[in-house]
Amino acid sequence: MTADQLIRQHRTADATVTVLAGGLPLANRRVTVAQRSHKFLFGANAFDLVRLANDEVAGEERAKLETRAEQWLALFNFATLPFYWGRFEPERGRPDTRRLLVAARWLADRGVAVKGHPLCWHTVQPDWLLPLSNDEIREAQKARIRREVTDFRGLIDTWDAINEAVIMPVFANGENGITRICRADGRIATVRMAFETARESNPHAFLLLNDFDMSTAFECLIEGVLEGGVAIDALGLQSHMHQGYWGEEKTLSIVDRFARYGLAIHFTENTLLSGHLMPPEIVDLNDYQVDDWPTTPAGEARQADEVVRHYKTLLSQPSIEATTYWDLTDGGWLKAPAGLVRLDGSPKPAYEALLGLVKGEWWLEPTPMVTDAQGKLSFSGFLGDYEVSDGGRAADFQLAQKGPAFIEVSLPG
Amino acid sequence: MTADQLIRQHRTADATVTVLAGGLPLANRRVTVAQRSHKFLFGANAFDLVRLANDEVAGEERAKLETRAEQWLALFNFATLPFYWGRFEPERGRPDTRRLLVAARWLADRGVAVKGHPLCWHTVQPDWLLPLSNDEIREAQKARIRREVTDFRGLIDTWDAINEAVIMPVFANGENGITRICRADGRIATVRMAFETARESNPHAFLLLNDFDMSTAFECLIEGVLEGGVAIDALGLQSHMHQGYWGEEKTLSIVDRFARYGLAIHFTENTLLSGHLMPPEIVDLNDYQVDDWPTTPAGEARQADEVVRHYKTLLSQPSIEATTYWDLTDGGWLKAPAGLVRLDGSPKPAYEALLGLVKGEWWLEPTPMVTDAQGKLSFSGFLGDYEVSDGGRAADFQLAQKGPAFIEVSLPG
Repeated sequence: MTADQLIRQHRTADATVTVLAGGLPLANRRVTVAQRSHKFLFGANAFDLVRLANDEVAGEERAKLETRAEQWLALFNFATLPFYWGRFEPERGRPDTRRLLVAARWLADRGVAVKGHPLCWHTVQPDWLLPLSNDEIREAQKARIRREVTDFRGLIDTWDAINEAVIMPVFANGENGITRICRADGRIATVRMAFETARESNPHAFLLLNDFDMSTAFECLIEGVLEGGVAIDALGLQSHMHQGYWGEEKTLSIVDRFARYGLAIHFTENTLLSGHLMPPEIVDLNDYQVDDWPTTPAGEARQADEVVRHYKTLLSQPSIEATTYWDLTDGGWLKAPAGLVRLDGSPKPAYEALLGLVKGEWWLEPTPMVTDAQGKLSFSGFLGDYEVSDGGRAADFQLAQKGPAFIEVSLPG
Repeated sequence: MTADQLIRQHRTADATVTVLAGGLPLANRRVTVAQRSHKFLFGANAFDLVRLANDEVAGEERAKLETRAEQWLALFNFATLPFYWGRFEPERGRPDTRRLLVAARWLADRGVAVKGHPLCWHTVQPDWLLPLSNDEIREAQKARIRREVTDFRGLIDTWDAINEAVIMPVFANGENGITRICRADGRIATVRMAFETARESNPHAFLLLNDFDMSTAFECLIEGVLEGGVAIDALGLQSHMHQGYWGEEKTLSIVDRFARYGLAIHFTENTLLSGHLMPPEIVDLNDYQVDDWPTTPAGEARQADEVVRHYKTLLSQPSIEATTYWDLTDGGWLKAPAGLVRLDGSPKPAYEALLGLVKGEWWLEPTPMVTDAQGKLSFSGFLGDYEVSDGGRAADFQLAQKGPAFIEVSLPG
């Protein structure tokens, strides 16, 4: 089967909707059916939008951020917000909770699901951990997990519980407290600490084990963590492609290796460039530092093609429940031209191409349909929330599972 | 501290030996003290010697193998014998047990400890596994482990219980039954199967988890296996250096990463070349196939230097209990000039250099010493078995632990 056929198979329902009004079938009536949202999580980080949500910008910068927010909300329904400990709580006891609560609520009000990233990581750590003993670091890490998961409960129920645990105990690029405790306790104990502490604070939390390491190392870690009985909700696979698009074959082989654990998969950090690629000999992407990394017309055409191929590949695989683009706009991590939108705010071809899938090929615009004598109408649609309307009255329904779906909807009045 | 100082610290005892004769101190007497063996396991594979031990060769070939055996026994006290399943039992039910028993006994009679390699591996598998179901493969693998460990008990109590489990479930270079069950069961369950089956068959077995993968993947596997409660006696680290000597820094950093699990470490497959190096871009060493790979004078000088540096680095680390050279003679795996001995049977400089350590710098030749008025003599020696003799009478003693040792030895008669 082609990717398009697999996407239809795994992501759509064949709905038979019986429309009722006043308890009776609404027969032979022209109604309008419209999709309201996707079940699939089309994500991006939303770090930029924290300032907008908090009214911290004015004038031209505000106008720019408002445009960005519109572009963001047109395409995405799943946001990653930053909880890097060293920036969230640079001074011990003064966490940035209020600003992040405002941002999370701003997103939730706009129908966006929010993930916090990350609760435990060895990079971007507060300096004040360094003089502490291992016992004190462990307690501080657990207290910080408890605090964030509790404070944001209901607004943020999805968390990268731990990030990059594969290299955590051997990370050598700068001293930090988390590498110290992970080296002392081992990876599995550290993963367990992060998951169990988060779970205690929010039994309904959806918790990810997130890593950039797509080698057998991450497989071995996952097997050890599962052996240890840690309850993982999803695997997070980073897929920064600064050195070039993986292509369908490599992507599918990676999904295949990680899907066999029977866990949901999130592609958590997708990057595709619209400029020159990072040289292949770079091992730690952070080692590639440039002053300027321009987007180019040829690069933008390539990126648009690759974005479409990448998203089609991901949606063709039923284990994948979310994919997060990193980031919407150029000028983010490493100054790479990874955005779907240029620095001047204009959308690149990749933005239009992805929008053409998410709100085009994979979307049902408001569509007139006519019910039959039993009040039934049939259509095939991508999983998500829908609305049926008849003049001024409307009712919602959901396509929650792939395959045949038989649904009754009652219009009010 | 230098490597030499660390070796003295970790590998020698300061012995005070009281020599008795007829229950009384043998005072002011000139005796001879001689080392008989090393506690440290200086190993090599002994695949060649199976034919010699079994009297399968005659004439010139026999003479050549006898020379090789002399060279082998002068340097090594620890042999690896081949138990590759596909060669050991190419026809189901007709294992090569008798020949290997003869070889193991031949080695044991010469004071050599023997390790069997390996009980479970995905490479060199018998073809007859392929048509079997996973359940049947699993049972066949367990039965084979039980059989070998039981048949060789007492002669071979050390086994590579499982080899290269990191890549086992994703190994793609040829279909094989073991990858199938490892993919179905997971790495940890497969490791547990190998260890528990071997342990049931010989509760005194010393069992290794052996791998070539020195990356974080092997660390993650080890942590998972320990989390799963599998009783591992030692980690086996392969160190084929066909692409060049690792150097002290890399070697120490690898030892440091794996020593933190508190398990004994064996360097199980050490290879240093005396010819050109394999190009760095080769990932699977098996992909480098050449007709001829000559040893060169410059390469032999480099190899001798590297062998000394490598062995000194390994012995300076207290976690390391064994190191196995792969192989004694040129023309082995990949035809690489990895031997310490040339194809014509003449020793290379590396052989002489290593012998100069093992039976020279780290060895006590028969040495005259004089006891004091209390019958005591003192010396510092490498851990192992010793003999003190006075004319025709002699007695053995052991330096078993580093540091100060107070020993009484009774001469007969």
